[in-house]
Amino acid sequence: MSTAQPSPDRDGVAAPPAWEPGYDIPARVGDPVAAVATPALIVDLDAFERNLDRMRRRAAELGVALRAHAKMHKSADVAQAQIARGGAVGICCQKVSEAEALMRAGLADVLVSNQVVGEARVARLVRLTERGAVAVCADHPDQVAAFSRAVTARRAETGSDRLTLDVLVEMDCGSGRCGTGSIAGSVALASAIDASPGLRFAGLQSYYGRAQHIVDPAERRAALATSLALTAATRDAIRAAGLPCDRITGAGTGSFEIEGASGVYTEIQAGSYAFMDADYARVRETTPDAFEHALFVLATVISVPGRGRAVCDAGLKAVAADSGLPLVHGLSGIAATGLSDEHCTLADPEAQLTLGAQVHLIPGHCDPTCNLHDWYVGVRHGRVECLWPVTARGKVF
Amino acid sequence: MSTAQPSPDRDGVAAPPAWEPGYDIPARVGDPVAAVATPALIVDLDAFERNLDRMRRRAAELGVALRAHAKMHKSADVAQAQIARGGAVGICCQKVSEAEALMRAGLADVLVSNQVVGEARVARLVRLTERGAVAVCADHPDQVAAFSRAVTARRAETGSDRLTLDVLVEMDCGSGRCGTGSIAGSVALASAIDASPGLRFAGLQSYYGRAQHIVDPAERRAALATSLALTAATRDAIRAAGLPCDRITGAGTGSFEIEGASGVYTEIQAGSYAFMDADYARVRETTPDAFEHALFVLATVISVPGRGRAVCDAGLKAVAADSGLPLVHGLSGIAATGLSDEHCTLADPEAQLTLGAQVHLIPGHCDPTCNLHDWYVGVRHGRVECLWPVTARGKVF
Repeated sequence: MSTAQPSPDRDGVAAPPAWEPGYDIPARVGDPVAAVATPALIVDLDAFERNLDRMRRRAAELGVALRAHAKMHKSADVAQAQIARGGAVGICCQKVSEAEALMRAGLADVLVSNQVVGEARVARLVRLTERGAVAVCADHPDQVAAFSRAVTARRAETGSDRLTLDVLVEMDCGSGRCGTGSIAGSVALASAIDASPGLRFAGLQSYYGRAQHIVDPAERRAALATSLALTAATRDAIRAAGLPCDRITGAGTGSFEIEGASGVYTEIQAGSYAFMDADYARVRETTPDAFEHALFVLATVISVPGRGRAVCDAGLKAVAADSGLPLVHGLSGIAATGLSDEHCTLADPEAQLTLGAQVHLIPGHCDPTCNLHDWYVGVRHGRVECLWPVTARGKVF
Repeated sequence: MSTAQPSPDRDGVAAPPAWEPGYDIPARVGDPVAAVATPALIVDLDAFERNLDRMRRRAAELGVALRAHAKMHKSADVAQAQIARGGAVGICCQKVSEAEALMRAGLADVLVSNQVVGEARVARLVRLTERGAVAVCADHPDQVAAFSRAVTARRAETGSDRLTLDVLVEMDCGSGRCGTGSIAGSVALASAIDASPGLRFAGLQSYYGRAQHIVDPAERRAALATSLALTAATRDAIRAAGLPCDRITGAGTGSFEIEGASGVYTEIQAGSYAFMDADYARVRETTPDAFEHALFVLATVISVPGRGRAVCDAGLKAVAADSGLPLVHGLSGIAATGLSDEHCTLADPEAQLTLGAQVHLIPGHCDPTCNLHDWYVGVRHGRVECLWPVTARGKVF
């Protein structure tokens, strides 16, 4: 095998530069955290595992299935841990390309909890049913027709009449985004799915995204009460029309305690619980049985220009800004004051930070932050224990 | 060569699924725009080339060199076009890993217009000097010492005494981020660079980031007047200390007309001019000789739930939100009202949009938007002419 090694002397081809951390991956297994090339996504493995254990226990206590939302982390390794250790029955994701990447990496039960539109995209979705259990949402009869055509076409191509796509009705329970806007519309859509060749009506998707982030618990509970009543009424109307409606899926990290205890939902789609972020931390403060921060953007101080200021090397391309500035973890008296493309400016009135110091930032919003990186650096007891690729990073198609 | 094709019958190994747009790349050359898998980054090649021509002409008229800022697009193809057609003398970027990726792809003259801190990172930077012309900034004497040590070490390793790193003093001319905070500090740092083995003092970096985005031209001019005076005084003080200070570099798309005409700057670092974005469009309206929007995020309408609303498939993972919502291009009466992880909600009071319709979004901020994608889809006359990789995507180390 040694003849396969490139050599500077052979054929006039220069040897590639020696590999080192930062060149293509941020660290090596066994490295101390101090050696990680920054900015890098750090997973505190102990905290991550405690979060998985806690959610497994809560879902069991509430009597609901956990379908972990992989849109948050886009990682096959995190998803497998959510299933194997964390008790998840499967995953959900938002894009066909995400489902493709995660199923190629071994995940076998995926709900695409979103609308899927476009002939080529629907055809790709239908082919995924040949790899495992796949379900998708719909909020419009034209999409139901498109799904049915694609399954029928694939049945003809493969000669398999058993190929079937599970389709859930997505209802708008308060977010004002996608979803049917009336109970009658949901019933009609469920009936259309049920009547369409190649499709199976698989239940109701009712996800109240906005409620996840209402900090005040009384306000959150009030918002969810309306949503829960509408979801139950929709389910009952579908059943009254003679269709089974056994799967009611939705809920997230900020609300699952309420939906999970409601008796309406059978499945919760929490994702952020595994890592947490600054925005969910604000909700968490009002929620018992708290999850821990397990995700950090590790950054390095690259400028200490004085005047109570330090600047580190994690900007908008390393930590998402849509939910506010990151928090600085474990350093009291230091706070982020600005985020530009490549820099995070820190107020450091007592000049604690020196050039080259490492800072752990807690991202405002974990989902778009994870999607910026190629690798998770798993850390335990101050050392790199594993590198996990962000399997579906950039898979937005 | 046909024996290299995978076959389902050979060795029991299943054939990979047939390739198609969206599976790994968003489109094929020759495809109509309607076939592009969305969300995707679209470059209007005619507008892009007109922007290059316009900036080449303006830089020549102003008598300044153009060093195109590749942090904006992270693409070797865009950078090569900025040089070959657009008259740029080279590029700048913000990270060592960006410089590595772009120099591996053939770029040969790179200014890392940022602080570089950490022994491993500095060593990587120094090795890039063996591939081409490389310069870097400093704002602290400890970094000057670190650069000098790294060059000295590399000289010993390679036996080459000629290896030299060009170092510019970065001064803070108003942004309140990195940079020396006084004229005396800049002079002392320039002297330290000049006195350090292996380093060459290469001039002054004075970039007023904040001024780029001041919409009112009188206000922008006033802010820049202070910055220009400080930059000129710093240059003069360095010269008075007996050091040459022939290169004054900085300025961006929103301000280069002023710095370029000042007689102080010798080099401008504009980047966004090539693509433009919604934020620069607000500044552009007050600037003559306008650049055109050449960059779009192509999205598909995936839900038309009624109530004057449509939802498309480009969310925070496809279009950056730090500078506000995207603009909707070429469709009057339709505007973005919200951006979540995977969705952009549109107000469409007259219900012009149907399921599957394509929408061209103008991102609020091009830099972090480009960094979300793996490919540029170059379009001319409604057809895909080229696919350019986002060479340094995710290279934040």
